[in-house]
Amino acid sequence: MFPKNAWYVACTPDEIGDKPLGRMICGRPIVFYRGEGGKVAALEDFCPHRGAALSLGAVVDGKLMCGYHGLVMGCDGKAVSMPMQRVGGFPCIHSYPVAELHGFIWVWPGDAGLADESAIPDLFWSDHPEWAFGGGLYHIQSDYRLMIDNLMDLTHEAYVHVGSIGQDEIDESPVRTQMEGDQVVTRREMQGIVAPPFWQAAMRAHGLDDQAPVDRWQVSRFTAPGHVLIEVGVALAGKGGINADPRDKVSAIVVDFMTPETESSHWYFWGMARHFQANDPALTDTIRTGQGQIFSQDLAVLEAQQRNQRLFPNRRLLALNIDAGGVRARRLLDDLVRGEGEAVGTAAN
Amino acid sequence: MFPKNAWYVACTPDEIGDKPLGRMICGRPIVFYRGEGGKVAALEDFCPHRGAALSLGAVVDGKLMCGYHGLVMGCDGKAVSMPMQRVGGFPCIHSYPVAELHGFIWVWPGDAGLADESAIPDLFWSDHPEWAFGGGLYHIQSDYRLMIDNLMDLTHEAYVHVGSIGQDEIDESPVRTQMEGDQVVTRREMQGIVAPPFWQAAMRAHGLDDQAPVDRWQVSRFTAPGHVLIEVGVALAGKGGINADPRDKVSAIVVDFMTPETESSHWYFWGMARHFQANDPALTDTIRTGQGQIFSQDLAVLEAQQRNQRLFPNRRLLALNIDAGGVRARRLLDDLVRGEGEAVGTAAN
Amino acid sequence: MFPKNAWYVACTPDEIGDKPLGRMICGRPIVFYRGEGGKVAALEDFCPHRGAALSLGAVVDGKLMCGYHGLVMGCDGKAVSMPMQRVGGFPCIHSYPVAELHGFIWVWPGDAGLADESAIPDLFWSDHPEWAFGGGLYHIQSDYRLMIDNLMDLTHEAYVHVGSIGQDEIDESPVRTQMEGDQVVTRREMQGIVAPPFWQAAMRAHGLDDQAPVDRWQVSRFTAPGHVLIEVGVALAGKGGINADPRDKVSAIVVDFMTPETESSHWYFWGMARHFQANDPALTDTIRTGQGQIFSQDLAVLEAQQRNQRLFPNRRLLALNIDAGGVRARRLLDDLVRGEGEAVGTAAN
Repeated sequence: MFPKNAWYVACTPDEIGDKPLGRMICGRPIVFYRGEGGKVAALEDFCPHRGAALSLGAVVDGKLMCGYHGLVMGCDGKAVSMPMQRVGGFPCIHSYPVAELHGFIWVWPGDAGLADESAIPDLFWSDHPEWAFGGGLYHIQSDYRLMIDNLMDLTHEAYVHVGSIGQDEIDESPVRTQMEGDQVVTRREMQGIVAPPFWQAAMRAHGLDDQAPVDRWQVSRFTAPGHVLIEVGVALAGKGGINADPRDKVSAIVVDFMTPETESSHWYFWGMARHFQANDPALTDTIRTGQGQIFSQDLAVLEAQQRNQRLFPNRRLLALNIDAGGVRARRLLDDLVRGEGEAVGTAAN
Repeated sequence: MFPKNAWYVACTPDEIGDKPLGRMICGRPIVFYRGEGGKVAALEDFCPHRGAALSLGAVVDGKLMCGYHGLVMGCDGKAVSMPMQRVGGFPCIHSYPVAELHGFIWVWPGDAGLADESAIPDLFWSDHPEWAFGGGLYHIQSDYRLMIDNLMDLTHEAYVHVGSIGQDEIDESPVRTQMEGDQVVTRREMQGIVAPPFWQAAMRAHGLDDQAPVDRWQVSRFTAPGHVLIEVGVALAGKGGINADPRDKVSAIVVDFMTPETESSHWYFWGMARHFQANDPALTDTIRTGQGQIFSQDLAVLEAQQRNQRLFPNRRLLALNIDAGGVRARRLLDDLVRGEGEAVGTAAN
Repeated sequence: MFPKNAWYVACTPDEIGDKPLGRMICGRPIVFYRGEGGKVAALEDFCPHRGAALSLGAVVDGKLMCGYHGLVMGCDGKAVSMPMQRVGGFPCIHSYPVAELHGFIWVWPGDAGLADESAIPDLFWSDHPEWAFGGGLYHIQSDYRLMIDNLMDLTHEAYVHVGSIGQDEIDESPVRTQMEGDQVVTRREMQGIVAPPFWQAAMRAHGLDDQAPVDRWQVSRFTAPGHVLIEVGVALAGKGGINADPRDKVSAIVVDFMTPETESSHWYFWGMARHFQANDPALTDTIRTGQGQIFSQDLAVLEAQQRNQRLFPNRRLLALNIDAGGVRARRLLDDLVRGEGEAVGTAAN
């Protein structure tokens, strides 16, 4: 249950070096590599000769060569050459629209004619000198929508992430969910609270008194098919919250890209773009390590939830106000899939 | 193929500490925990909010709190509270009858209205000062009935357990199988033999000459759905066997509770309650270690047998006199399952 | 998709020592052991009593005894004895024709009445003083026919096996495929080339100048159901190639027996019989180690190819001239399977 005519994060640039990368996305085996001039290409991971995985081959002179019998493939999916063979009549393989933008490699698994790079989210912070980014990748055995639910309702932080970003005030503060254009937006604000450990550390790093009362915000923004960007931060209480002067606040964007592998597994690209101490790479590493640990706590929760969905596929789940973000995100996805002419499952909506 | 209206051993008390325990029993995911006053509770391992596994949560003030969004569940399967929510209309989850008795936690997966704690086997030795118990748990990838067959026909000891409790006289002595009330009972007696290594050690510990000829007995008692208690021991020859004066014999009960996990896997709670040297905890450990090794020899046998049943589901098996115990036990189980209105498979009966 | 009325390599003699060996072949669980006089026997790995795996038993006085309850089985599949039982009416299990010949154990999974040992390939080198053999066994998660394809088209050596036996000239030289009786034969010859590292080492060992130009040959001979013997070697250039005087050449036979385990996995018995330095066991070990490493490079290729076949079962593959050997081998196999009255799949032909 995923739209195919959409941009998904396929990998990060560092995953494609001299060797090609094979990755299944939306049920399709795809090989990613750097062609001529280092430009990223994405092809079916299937040699038209005998079905070998092209990802086990090599890049030679900017072209992907099958590691089995030396067929050389162009980035358009047409065979270029093969020793002692005329390749003119060889069947083509699918070439996927792909783009390297904002620090990620994006792929469009569906109809190539509809792919439009301008629809890739604008991650303005990715090349902004006042911002720094660090992140990682998890391979999770659950429907990617369970992770979208997770991120569109941060209530779980109070339970899953006690001791870092969780605090009691989270689930004592109401959430508001609304559409803003094609985004589902869920907002939660907490006023006059003590910052949790993660933000206390950020305040100290920013020269603020970490014991001072703060206003805290979490604004989760979902864009189809699997992007959740969460504006988070704290400002000294009464200074305007998310709109406070930069000297009075520390803020960041939690970055989450969920890319389906199959119906019941996904690639989870997570990270944090922060707007404080941007020139401190050691801090980037520290945050990445901490965030990796925090997010790994979600893995067991989601994989057990997936098991329960498999055991009880028809059991109705609740859709409370805190679930509104996930519910609306699923509706958007359902509409997109229906628009592509596919049936939409009802389980766990 | 298992009765649902029956008491099964779910776990041992030490498996439920501060944290809940998730375990699949008879195909149902169940969470066990200690509620108010330490009383054990058993619920579906399924949060009615979004299907999270409650077993990943925590026990707070005697109530089970979902670790995902803080829903608090009562031991009756009704939601008690959830931050910022009214839970009155939340769907209930199944609450399973559960009892802590005789050193085990027992669960009734079927119709709660039929559960009657008096039907739990009376393990008289569990709190008797002259008896000591030690045991363990194995997770086995086979139909639980293959283990019942195994235990109701101890002929296999002569082959599988050479060097500990096996001896040639076992398969040279006839067995008698009969019903005693709702029990299937298989008896084997050997007279005037040399004790095998395990019993020689027990005789020495009890101050008896380990080279003296003995009468040995094995009385396997099956009670539905998955309990096999085996009275075993040796007495100095001619002193009355199982009925000999305590000074002239050493005896024990081999304890076996088989609890289906799925149709093709089960939890095997094994142990020994002994009626000699009861106040020697080091001996309890030694026996537990030895018994664990002996019983682990059965694992490979049963798992390969299960593979053969899967490959040849319709091949007729033999039911010899030595198999009478297992065959009768399976008939009892078939009758119970039929009584619950389910179809009974014929494979491997 | 495999013929059943055919001889397959089941194991090597050293795999059957004191203990029986259980191995699934063509979807059938089979136990191999040495009966009276050390003669190899092959039976269904299924005890007629309760379906235990006979391969977990023991050989006692030349007969296979079930390790569960002591049933003793004859090599004809009839129960011989069982403690306290009359076995006359016990059902028989299948006894497979089996032969120990030329350094391998061969089994015939199909109709025993059709088995004829004279159809086993004559591995003349197996007891020839001028030849030495070393080999090994890999368990591969792919259709055995993918390995036949692999071996009937050595073009892949130029890509998969760079640095040992691969060299550019391989894929620059044409191949010729033809039937010779019931063999599919693929020939490739390279003239006046520099030998690749493996053959340079062999030339040095044989007292030849390893920098001298050579003529190299590869003659792959497929015989159904899964035997590929490849005559390989180099001779000093212009001395007659494969027909050169023994002093001017070094040659060997690459030995490959593919035995299906299931439709999508197989046992791969590989090795090399060499016609140089036959009395140097250290060289045998060195070659075995090197060949094992070379052949392990094929595993990942074949298993990924199998995954692609599973994902795209109906996609047409190319059958180029270099594929003619594999294509003809598959046709032979299809004919054999059709002759046995089974449907033949068309995927990946």
